[in-house]
Amino acid sequence: MDSDCSPTLALAQALVALPSITPQDAGCQDLIIARLAKCGFHIESLPFGDVTNLWAWHGNESPLFCFAGHTDVVPPGQLHLWSSDPFTPTLRDGMLFGRGAADMKGSLAAMIVAAEGFIQENPTHRGKLAFLLTSDEEGPAIDGTAKVIEHLQTCGQKIDYCLIGEPTSTQQLGDCIKNGRRGSLNARLRIFGKQGHVAYPHRADNPIHHFAPTLVRFCNEVWDQGNEYFPPTSFQISGIQAGTGAENVIPGILDLQFNFRFSTELTPEIIQQRVIAMLDQGLCNYELEWHLSGLPFVTPVGQLVTTTQSAVQTILGYEPVLSTSGGTSDGRFIAPTGAEVLELGPVNTTIHQVDECVAVDDLEQLTRIYHAILCDLLK
Amino acid sequence: MDSDCSPTLALAQALVALPSITPQDAGCQDLIIARLAKCGFHIESLPFGDVTNLWAWHGNESPLFCFAGHTDVVPPGQLHLWSSDPFTPTLRDGMLFGRGAADMKGSLAAMIVAAEGFIQENPTHRGKLAFLLTSDEEGPAIDGTAKVIEHLQTCGQKIDYCLIGEPTSTQQLGDCIKNGRRGSLNARLRIFGKQGHVAYPHRADNPIHHFAPTLVRFCNEVWDQGNEYFPPTSFQISGIQAGTGAENVIPGILDLQFNFRFSTELTPEIIQQRVIAMLDQGLCNYELEWHLSGLPFVTPVGQLVTTTQSAVQTILGYEPVLSTSGGTSDGRFIAPTGAEVLELGPVNTTIHQVDECVAVDDLEQLTRIYHAILCDLLK
Ligand SMILES: [Zn+2]
Ligand SMILES: [Zn+2]
Repeated sequence: MDSDCSPTLALAQALVALPSITPQDAGCQDLIIARLAKCGFHIESLPFGDVTNLWAWHGNESPLFCFAGHTDVVPPGQLHLWSSDPFTPTLRDGMLFGRGAADMKGSLAAMIVAAEGFIQENPTHRGKLAFLLTSDEEGPAIDGTAKVIEHLQTCGQKIDYCLIGEPTSTQQLGDCIKNGRRGSLNARLRIFGKQGHVAYPHRADNPIHHFAPTLVRFCNEVWDQGNEYFPPTSFQISGIQAGTGAENVIPGILDLQFNFRFSTELTPEIIQQRVIAMLDQGLCNYELEWHLSGLPFVTPVGQLVTTTQSAVQTILGYEPVLSTSGGTSDGRFIAPTGAEVLELGPVNTTIHQVDECVAVDDLEQLTRIYHAILCDLLK
Repeated sequence: MDSDCSPTLALAQALVALPSITPQDAGCQDLIIARLAKCGFHIESLPFGDVTNLWAWHGNESPLFCFAGHTDVVPPGQLHLWSSDPFTPTLRDGMLFGRGAADMKGSLAAMIVAAEGFIQENPTHRGKLAFLLTSDEEGPAIDGTAKVIEHLQTCGQKIDYCLIGEPTSTQQLGDCIKNGRRGSLNARLRIFGKQGHVAYPHRADNPIHHFAPTLVRFCNEVWDQGNEYFPPTSFQISGIQAGTGAENVIPGILDLQFNFRFSTELTPEIIQQRVIAMLDQGLCNYELEWHLSGLPFVTPVGQLVTTTQSAVQTILGYEPVLSTSGGTSDGRFIAPTGAEVLELGPVNTTIHQVDECVAVDDLEQLTRIYHAILCDLLK
């Protein structure tokens, strides 16, 4: 398989060659617009701030099916660690190497080639086929998908089905699809003690000693049991700091940063109440600041899940598992509109790392899966 | 009481006026040498590195009684917080204000005036009366008292009784004298986990979570019960650090710094073994570095304690309590030679702080106490 006989590979290579580090699009969407316009898509460019966004559609009926994704990539990191230049798409051992090959320029290429084929075969398909692309998924994600969704709601456009090309596969293509994500809640906690000299501990209140039993209770707490779609809520401390640097000084302040990845069994309010109750039980004197990164969302088993599972089964011969694990995704902005949102893309073992790559065969198979989904929903 | 009728106050003022921030002596010892030489002391200046030290003695027999102390002071800190200039000795409300007034230029003045009076009354006293002074007690203390003691041992000089003028009093003059100090042992502990993304905690090993139960065991551990002379050994964490600053990263490393103030019931080796056993019990993967600041030392009740207690009782009408609490002292270098070592000086509530001060009356009473001790031991 080479780029002569694989339009998906050829397009993926063209996209990887464009160094679109967040929030830069570096011409990716222009390339995509040219392809989509050629087969009759209506194009709406929606730049916000320094972010490039695209809304493109074909057909005007219901249901509205949307491919969603991002043209931006994370920085390549230390160039000398790469086996080949991250922005020079390189084929080696059946793999396409380059930053964004798996996350998610390979998926974008597969979506576009699948859409082109589908429209050529079904120029008057039912429903509406759309693309929602942004150049700020890996960044703050403020001027990207969220703003496009706002715009669509203003125009009265309602997405029924949304398939996001994030790399959800873990061991082999299609072994895992994501039908939601956990919520993410960050906190900054400051525990106040009383500074003093280590030789006179009774005149001080060491906040590390004071907080230690509460710390253990936080670590041991079972926050929930998860549910059908979600693993149990997890709590992780990302940072802890105390001390002046002097060996003989008992610090007066202890700072902690922690994160909850939480299921739909909990709300931010419930988590906050439980954290505060535990701090109060530990007789802690504290300040606490919260930052909600995203609420949990889930697409229950329905039309889109069934269609996607059976497309994977037909093309690959096995059924994907549903999962809500992993980091945040732009699905958090789309799901609240009532759309069924699903993520399906390549194997994610190399994403955000050096020598990111995707199997050329997987690009081909992914194109066939996306095509089968379009046939099932819009034919 | 003013400096006209109090030679101790006058000398204390003269010393406070000299800005002898560690390791500078700023002429303090020259002033003292002039006074001691005038009443017949032999003078031996013992500079080491940038530290000024003095050994001076009067008489040639046994026993050898030594006043010990330091001419250096800690920095004044923020000048605008002082009510009067720290190096301009200032009398206010019966107190002498200035850096070093209590720690320990007031004591030095009292010792010298007491010695002058004693020698005038007893020019052919028994034993030997000596002064051991350094300008590096508040600093690294490497080229100070430790080096003078080495020198004395080389010359075959053995101190029998040593009275150090450190400010040991807590509420009123003479309420507390110190007959030893706890040992001080510092450690730097690094706990190794495995870095990862907060969304995938099962792929990481959070060293904060891993270490938390062991942290609690450290804080709750009863290291010993102390003994007749020592309070129980205390453990204090002076610093803790982990985290990259990113909210979504589980740190791979946790660093801690802690200190033991330990009694003669324990040795550094025993403490180290117990810490290691607790870390191993917690299945911690760690690196551990130790730094011994000083072994514990104690002067049991004997001639010097009895003499000093009765001098305080006679002059002030109450008996001082014996204590081994507080920070390190140069006594740790003198006690191992076999000398009886005791510390008695002014009230320490303002030492190392802004507006350090000593009561003028206390300087007078301290002079009388020191004089009474000399009479008891050398007359
Ligand atoms: Zn992505
Ligand atoms: Zn001192």
